[in-house]
Amino acid sequence: MVPAGEPTEKTIQTLTGILAKGDTIIDGGNSKWKDDIRRARELAPKGIHYVDAGTSGGVWGLQNGYCLMVGGDKEPVQRLAPIFTTLGPPDGWMHVGAAGAGHYVKMIHNGIEYAMMQGYAEGFELMSESEYGLDLPAIAKLWMQGSVVRSWLLVLTADALAADPKLSALKPWVEDSGEGRWTVDDAVEKAVPAPTITASLFARFRSRRENSFADRLLAAMRNQFGGHAVRR
Amino acid sequence: MVPAGEPTEKTIQTLTGILAKGDTIIDGGNSKWKDDIRRARELAPKGIHYVDAGTSGGVWGLQNGYCLMVGGDKEPVQRLAPIFTTLGPPDGWMHVGAAGAGHYVKMIHNGIEYAMMQGYAEGFELMSESEYGLDLPAIAKLWMQGSVVRSWLLVLTADALAADPKLSALKPWVEDSGEGRWTVDDAVEKAVPAPTITASLFARFRSRRENSFADRLLAAMRNQFGGHAVRR
Amino acid sequence: MVPAGEPTEKTIQTLTGILAKGDTIIDGGNSKWKDDIRRARELAPKGIHYVDAGTSGGVWGLQNGYCLMVGGDKEPVQRLAPIFTTLGPPDGWMHVGAAGAGHYVKMIHNGIEYAMMQGYAEGFELMSESEYGLDLPAIAKLWMQGSVVRSWLLVLTADALAADPKLSALKPWVEDSGEGRWTVDDAVEKAVPAPTITASLFARFRSRRENSFADRLLAAMRNQFGGHAVRR
Amino acid sequence: MVPAGEPTEKTIQTLTGILAKGDTIIDGGNSKWKDDIRRARELAPKGIHYVDAGTSGGVWGLQNGYCLMVGGDKEPVQRLAPIFTTLGPPDGWMHVGAAGAGHYVKMIHNGIEYAMMQGYAEGFELMSESEYGLDLPAIAKLWMQGSVVRSWLLVLTADALAADPKLSALKPWVEDSGEGRWTVDDAVEKAVPAPTITASLFARFRSRRENSFADRLLAAMRNQFGGHAVRR
Repeated sequence: MVPAGEPTEKTIQTLTGILAKGDTIIDGGNSKWKDDIRRARELAPKGIHYVDAGTSGGVWGLQNGYCLMVGGDKEPVQRLAPIFTTLGPPDGWMHVGAAGAGHYVKMIHNGIEYAMMQGYAEGFELMSESEYGLDLPAIAKLWMQGSVVRSWLLVLTADALAADPKLSALKPWVEDSGEGRWTVDDAVEKAVPAPTITASLFARFRSRRENSFADRLLAAMRNQFGGHAVRR
Repeated sequence: MVPAGEPTEKTIQTLTGILAKGDTIIDGGNSKWKDDIRRARELAPKGIHYVDAGTSGGVWGLQNGYCLMVGGDKEPVQRLAPIFTTLGPPDGWMHVGAAGAGHYVKMIHNGIEYAMMQGYAEGFELMSESEYGLDLPAIAKLWMQGSVVRSWLLVLTADALAADPKLSALKPWVEDSGEGRWTVDDAVEKAVPAPTITASLFARFRSRRENSFADRLLAAMRNQFGGHAVRR
Repeated sequence: MVPAGEPTEKTIQTLTGILAKGDTIIDGGNSKWKDDIRRARELAPKGIHYVDAGTSGGVWGLQNGYCLMVGGDKEPVQRLAPIFTTLGPPDGWMHVGAAGAGHYVKMIHNGIEYAMMQGYAEGFELMSESEYGLDLPAIAKLWMQGSVVRSWLLVLTADALAADPKLSALKPWVEDSGEGRWTVDDAVEKAVPAPTITASLFARFRSRRENSFADRLLAAMRNQFGGHAVRR
Repeated sequence: MVPAGEPTEKTIQTLTGILAKGDTIIDGGNSKWKDDIRRARELAPKGIHYVDAGTSGGVWGLQNGYCLMVGGDKEPVQRLAPIFTTLGPPDGWMHVGAAGAGHYVKMIHNGIEYAMMQGYAEGFELMSESEYGLDLPAIAKLWMQGSVVRSWLLVLTADALAADPKLSALKPWVEDSGEGRWTVDDAVEKAVPAPTITASLFARFRSRRENSFADRLLAAMRNQFGGHAVRR
């Protein structure tokens, strides 16, 4: 995960003490967009510019270039354009809006990413239980050839399945970083339904709960009203 | 679980061979309503009546009387009224419609039950992790005194929590019977959204998956694009 | 809706200027529990006590008594016990924890309420489209007699359906107040899955969107890849 | 939509009367995989082969070639390979399993497609309401350059948004075809949770409900317990 939160905050405070008027800080990590807005406002009186660059592409960005969503004032963003042009693939960066906009767009990008990943995960899990004995690595590869669901995430899925068709080396434990959570917060704040993004986040939460109280309470209730057997 | 499926089917076939014109079969189990319709149609030419009685109340029905939702032709249902009156609490039974209607209404009842149970389960799980150190058995009891969420399921929840406040004797393993699944099938067939009923059913499914392929695939994808650590 | 937010904040500020050491403020509205914590901390140096009382029971509380979940320090809560005893039904109030705990427990109560309401709503919607021509007001009443899904919300449902069986006088527009949203925020913050509570909140959001951008984008995508007809 | 159901069934019946032993029927539509299994079993005694070819790629398949997932016996599939090789892009077809497997894999493909589409739809709806005044068509294009969420569906999204940035010509009305429903049926039957695929299907259902009974019942309940205003 790209650094965010406390380490970023401290670095910016340190830099603020060193930088001079006209200097620019680029936050190329995964900060919360509301933090960007606050920081830009705090730095403005000192004449220090703050630019937030949401970065996508994963570890592959090193070869492919990073897709960059940049937020901040026009002047520093334009001045720094050569940096973004160098880091990104052709047409691979954009000034998307004022301070925080870069990380806001990146946050939504990650929310969508969660839903796409979960969609594939559900589909492949269903296929993994099919009585047809399906060849999942081959199907993932097949779908890359002209199907509607072809995507870069599917390429990665195909690679992962090719390396370990039953994923037997892995534990069903899925981390989440801040962006998925913030996307749900944004949906709640805007009163916009976001059922798949939220379901994806909850699936990750669920993957990490080893003795769910909710599930034990359900078992207890069933036992209470129906005398249904419970596992102890 | 009240018997359904194969044993019911066989019993009805056996009875059909024995019964005479004018006789009535009451299916007081948890049959699928579409099976009721089929059976009623098959029995009609022989002059045998088929009545489906959805039954709610759990093991407590023995003391409280059973809430009965009855489907079938008017004549046999009216003729059998004394049975239903005896089994149910006052006003505790109703002729809800033609063959299958009894089990249809009972099926929906169970779908609602799943959502209510899951709602409580989520709320109590959140409270179980609160830094306030909340007394869950006492809160469940408190809510029975005039709160908006008071219900019979809450009484059972209070009883279960009183007996074992941390539910430490239980495993997070939740069975489901047919009705929840059929309610989702009904929603899909009617093109009616049923998000909470379905989420409740999926939560039960999830409780029983010990090495989710979906979650392992998510972990594998994260590892592919981000070099994120996975648990092996 | 019980007042919360800005009006509450202002009232507390005004009171703070007037009150003396040893006085106690009771917030019996629907404040956010984190605001309670902050207020209690701000008032403590002045020796003013802050007690938050989450209140359930709706407009019926006037007759039935209000179910009260009380947060705050032990001393003021015990001193004020006669007030809570008077307002609530027997055993109808409880000191659930430190400052904010009252509104926290009330918030979870409302989250559960959303899920229960949505569960009933989905079930009755499915029944409203059944080919059996079901008598919904009668079924709601029937279920009150010993069924597993009996609850106070079901009584209200039965009353509403009795008054207007097809609910034809109403618009499908459902408001939400803060507690549902804060419950989802709490789930996200605690990394606890809350699929039914969240689905219930999103259903309300959806009910108020009259020209969903998401749905138009889905229609546009279908048209792009499949040449599927769209409605203009 | 590719034809399925009744017209397919009739066509196959007609063909069955005409075909001779050793002939093969290819169903390149969107049949339900369980129908394929039945048909293959019915045709086997007559020596007629049945091959089901799930086809993806939309109207663009005409230029790009169709991604083909083929089910059936080994002999006819191998004999017909030249057809599939001609219709598909390189490596664009695969014999995925016995009769029905082609349409089963295609069904899952469509379930995944629903979830991906819904993920984008939610993300773009959130962005459409951002105070940043985001340029959605440009962002969709930007994300094609090296981002984690790049996909063919995103290309289509970019095209649709470029043509009509506010999608103002469209109605929020989203059809669904059988595959999404069957995927949910499969999840229910297999007891595998599929929350995002199901949420996507329900979002489409919801888009077509113009006077939701569920939402009216929620409004009625709120009015009953809280005296909350309703819209009439």
